[in-house]
Amino acid sequence: MKRILNFSAGPATLPVSVLEEASRGILEIEGSGMSILEVSHRGSHYEKIHFDARDRMLKLMGLSADEYTCLFLGGGASLQFAMLPMNYLAGGSADYVQTGEWPNKAMKEAKIFGKVNVSASSEDGKYSYIPKVFKWDPAAQYAHICTNNTIEGTAFSKLPDTGVVPLVADASSEMLSRAWDFSKFSMIYAGAQKNLGPAGVCVVVMKKSFLEKAREEVPAILSYKIHAKNDSLYNTPPAFAIYTLGLVLKWLDTQGGVKGIEEKNRRKAGFIYQAIDDLLDVYEPACREKEDRSLMNITWRLRTADADREKAFLKGAQDIGLDGLKGHRSVGGFRASVYNAFPEEGCAKLAQYLRDFAKQY
Amino acid sequence: MKRILNFSAGPATLPVSVLEEASRGILEIEGSGMSILEVSHRGSHYEKIHFDARDRMLKLMGLSADEYTCLFLGGGASLQFAMLPMNYLAGGSADYVQTGEWPNKAMKEAKIFGKVNVSASSEDGKYSYIPKVFKWDPAAQYAHICTNNTIEGTAFSKLPDTGVVPLVADASSEMLSRAWDFSKFSMIYAGAQKNLGPAGVCVVVMKKSFLEKAREEVPAILSYKIHAKNDSLYNTPPAFAIYTLGLVLKWLDTQGGVKGIEEKNRRKAGFIYQAIDDLLDVYEPACREKEDRSLMNITWRLRTADADREKAFLKGAQDIGLDGLKGHRSVGGFRASVYNAFPEEGCAKLAQYLRDFAKQY
Repeated sequence: MKRILNFSAGPATLPVSVLEEASRGILEIEGSGMSILEVSHRGSHYEKIHFDARDRMLKLMGLSADEYTCLFLGGGASLQFAMLPMNYLAGGSADYVQTGEWPNKAMKEAKIFGKVNVSASSEDGKYSYIPKVFKWDPAAQYAHICTNNTIEGTAFSKLPDTGVVPLVADASSEMLSRAWDFSKFSMIYAGAQKNLGPAGVCVVVMKKSFLEKAREEVPAILSYKIHAKNDSLYNTPPAFAIYTLGLVLKWLDTQGGVKGIEEKNRRKAGFIYQAIDDLLDVYEPACREKEDRSLMNITWRLRTADADREKAFLKGAQDIGLDGLKGHRSVGGFRASVYNAFPEEGCAKLAQYLRDFAKQY
Repeated sequence: MKRILNFSAGPATLPVSVLEEASRGILEIEGSGMSILEVSHRGSHYEKIHFDARDRMLKLMGLSADEYTCLFLGGGASLQFAMLPMNYLAGGSADYVQTGEWPNKAMKEAKIFGKVNVSASSEDGKYSYIPKVFKWDPAAQYAHICTNNTIEGTAFSKLPDTGVVPLVADASSEMLSRAWDFSKFSMIYAGAQKNLGPAGVCVVVMKKSFLEKAREEVPAILSYKIHAKNDSLYNTPPAFAIYTLGLVLKWLDTQGGVKGIEEKNRRKAGFIYQAIDDLLDVYEPACREKEDRSLMNITWRLRTADADREKAFLKGAQDIGLDGLKGHRSVGGFRASVYNAFPEEGCAKLAQYLRDFAKQY
């Protein structure tokens, strides 16, 4: 089992212990004589896995099952961009903070179902920072933010106060990587394939008082109320993705939970940002404010960029086992995605490479 | 690796060779230094898997990539119940054949988007048969059938002629189990977790001329046109489910393709139906017409049923390793789901148990 250092933005690195257990589960789960891929979603083997993952998720977030519910849905976080306004707008309005490409996609879907207020935007700076001043509409059904912007490498350093407007967040690229006060969210959702597990499942954590306000007149398969009422078993769930997510949550407990992993994540990102900050004549951070820097997706460019030099940087990285560092085409340059499971020594190795490359540059 | 005989309706038995290869892929895929769960969906490792699965699917169905497209979507077949009318109705109408619980769910979702004509129904017989006379409305956007009814154990023995109305089929519980002339379908879809792979992906095969008629004014994530234009890579696909589905399709080639597996499936179902037919004083088939019998889901009851006798039947079966034979609550009795990967000797063993149980009965 060869391992490279995989800086991919997602699907992304998972803990080796999780991969080993999932590999065994594919052959047989708990002496059942069946693979995890073969057990019925109505049977006791799967139900135990399903409810354990749900309970662990709420516990790791410090949320009570009396106040919050956790759903596991198929279709990816992109489906939530449409499901959320479908379940809440019906011609009403919602506030959106425009911080990059993914929020733009969410806003586009919302406009099909109602009015979108732009509460704040960093479009003027090509999404290189997080807005600090917001305008919330008390009549809005919810206020939507993207807590961490995967492509741009920016993140909210603190949550905005949305007043009476319920706060909804897409946290796909940073879920359970830092210790928010999660009770501030009326809803927080995340595609699993970055911090939580493999692609194929989206975690949706909802405050029950917010869930109650969802519309009933939507297709059953797209209704939060129907999925909540059926404990995410209305239809066959993406069972293997949920199983693996459960293994990742167990692993997270061994890392000191969300607080423990946040400390580690700050150290990991620190190695790389420090190298960039020490070499500002060579590298330029894509995120323009230090306080808005993402801990998960670190973006930078060569100060005097040309295609050949960028290629040389990537080739040199690849040669020493650093993979997936090419930045998203809309930002250019480089991106190191260092999610929860990405090893600390990999960050140190990239920092060293940044220094070595700068010397010969 | 202990193996039981798993008659579950889905998720269901997969070929052992597929499980073994998927188990290895979880550790590392093709010498990449990454798990199949970790590779980027935009990278070469995954793209090869993705397009190979798509091409194999069309080839196994005998369809040309010029005329048809194959999509891999998250959200399950249940999402198609809503996506299909959302993409085609907009207040228009569609024909539906009502043959059981799943078609009822599909019809319920369609009513949100337009008018549903019931072209034929077997509701009067508690869905114990397949209607033979249909009324198609030439103005309908499509005609929807469920080719095999998982719960009731019925199946179309031949496809209805829908004239000018495009034929759309939910084939979740029988996809690639028998050799239809697939070019009769304008669209055919199937949740993978019965015949094609693990839960988490739905295969949607569409005639391009039908795809062209889809509406544009739908959320991007729910648009057939957007998914087709992006080769099912508009958002992160359920990569592991698609990978495993690809392995199942490779295995199917070793079984003589769809024609080869159909022969085997007829032998397999034949063992069980023969035992029931030989013992009609003890067992009663739930499907009332022989020609409407499903090859995949075999349903029957005890002629003089009581809860204790049913329990005794299930307990005796469990004791010899026959698992998952309890019928769906809406039909009662028993159900043996014997999908493509279910072993022939398991069917022979159940047939023998049916005979043994009848003797002591």
